[in-house]
Amino acid sequence: MNFADRLDAATERVRTPALVGIDPHLELLPDEYAAAQDPRVPRAERAALVERFCLELLDVVAGRVAAVKPQAAFFEVLGADGVRAFERVCDRARSLDLLVIGDVKRGDIATTARAYAEAFLGPNEGRCDAITVSPFLGPDTLEPFAEVAAREDAGLYVLLRTSNPGGATFQRHGTPELWESVATSLEALGSDHVGTCGYSSVGAVVGATNREELASLRARLPHTPFLLPGYGAQGAGGEDILPAFPDRDAPWRGGLVNSSRGIAFAWRKHPDLTPKDASRRALDAMIADLGRALGID
Amino acid sequence: MNFADRLDAATERVRTPALVGIDPHLELLPDEYAAAQDPRVPRAERAALVERFCLELLDVVAGRVAAVKPQAAFFEVLGADGVRAFERVCDRARSLDLLVIGDVKRGDIATTARAYAEAFLGPNEGRCDAITVSPFLGPDTLEPFAEVAAREDAGLYVLLRTSNPGGATFQRHGTPELWESVATSLEALGSDHVGTCGYSSVGAVVGATNREELASLRARLPHTPFLLPGYGAQGAGGEDILPAFPDRDAPWRGGLVNSSRGIAFAWRKHPDLTPKDASRRALDAMIADLGRALGID
Repeated sequence: MNFADRLDAATERVRTPALVGIDPHLELLPDEYAAAQDPRVPRAERAALVERFCLELLDVVAGRVAAVKPQAAFFEVLGADGVRAFERVCDRARSLDLLVIGDVKRGDIATTARAYAEAFLGPNEGRCDAITVSPFLGPDTLEPFAEVAAREDAGLYVLLRTSNPGGATFQRHGTPELWESVATSLEALGSDHVGTCGYSSVGAVVGATNREELASLRARLPHTPFLLPGYGAQGAGGEDILPAFPDRDAPWRGGLVNSSRGIAFAWRKHPDLTPKDASRRALDAMIADLGRALGID
Repeated sequence: MNFADRLDAATERVRTPALVGIDPHLELLPDEYAAAQDPRVPRAERAALVERFCLELLDVVAGRVAAVKPQAAFFEVLGADGVRAFERVCDRARSLDLLVIGDVKRGDIATTARAYAEAFLGPNEGRCDAITVSPFLGPDTLEPFAEVAAREDAGLYVLLRTSNPGGATFQRHGTPELWESVATSLEALGSDHVGTCGYSSVGAVVGATNREELASLRARLPHTPFLLPGYGAQGAGGEDILPAFPDRDAPWRGGLVNSSRGIAFAWRKHPDLTPKDASRRALDAMIADLGRALGID
């Protein structure tokens, strides 16, 4: 079954498009993990703490969401030890029936792109079910990723429009705007990988803070599943993401709505709760908020 | 001393802008390393072979060139074991007085970008002297990289114009073209980091296969050092890169000209030589070719 249909089945099972980002910012970890940010502590020990924090978070979210999105940067900051932790977190997530979207934002040309695709989507330790990729080097550079993804029933999310302060500078460059040109390429690339659910295994990363823009993106990219960061910590609420989900019979279908810090570091706003309980409560609230907005019973 | 001046001193010492890419494509390694591509061999053993191949290559190039450019993808394909090999190769290169330009093409926002910058440029095992970064997410996303780089006397090379078949699709999008907008941002970013050599620690990756375009880029970005892939295997020769190097008194100043496969896998064209001897001869030829083109004695 291709990635689009695997994801569709998984979201239908949990009846929510909520996606939990696994972003172990060293500086934001609970006190019991404080040694993870201490450069005097051996790197392998620091990485073990990061791994343990992430595994606890997986326990909280397993069965509640379809997928998790580990952010490679916060593992790579601990070098090879951190990458080992990333692999273990991915493997554990998959063993808990969570799809893993590796937020790695890789992009390169030809055989180099293929090596990255094999690294993250091939049959390796720590493999991901999908990864994020950057289109800057051109549509030809997405093809090796798409080929490996298709072989492995894996998916891609291509960076398209991001909501950071300078996100528009290059992405909205020109008339038509750059993102429109990227959108045309990715819809073409994705057309070969549309599942029975009607969506493709080639998706797009789209900032979720502008409802009008999201509606126009959904109209233009009817087969492209969206990965929507920006929920919670970055300001978007359930109402803002509505246009990405046009299917009233399967209101969770059309994308994944990501929250990272809002779930992982919920304990910072609720010091009365254990980190796990705070995350559990924050995830409940997110799922309820999305459910209300999308009209999921 | 900032990265621009460190690089300038190093290129002056070797009197060549040649840069050797360390791209250990598993499929192209000499026979004695063939187990590196065998998935039945334990991953750590495969990574150890990759590491040994790269260390042998460093022996060949040390003292001959200012810098090497390891390509992360070909290490990451072996997961955490490969990343460990990458770190060891970087550390060995630095111990041989080679500057290390990590070809990692990372790009992300805010604290995530900072985590990547710390990962590769911070005081860690396997640290690099400079890395390649992608501008797609916006000029604000380059700032955390520039901040960490400045703190560490390290450098950046921002992807600007690449010569792969689809490189123009997005990079030349719009009027003015996207790369011109990226160029404006990166010259602004780099203006705070210009060394006494007249160039900045913020450089640009520029495909070296079009001489006219290179001349126009040099005119527009007088303080930006270029990283020029495309020499050798990708078709460019010494004459093609001339416009990047406008300084007749220091003709090696203005950029680095990269050859990866042409050096590392020279043995494939010279099966009569050992891999090291073939690489040594290919590097001699490259340095001589660049020297003739640039008028270095």
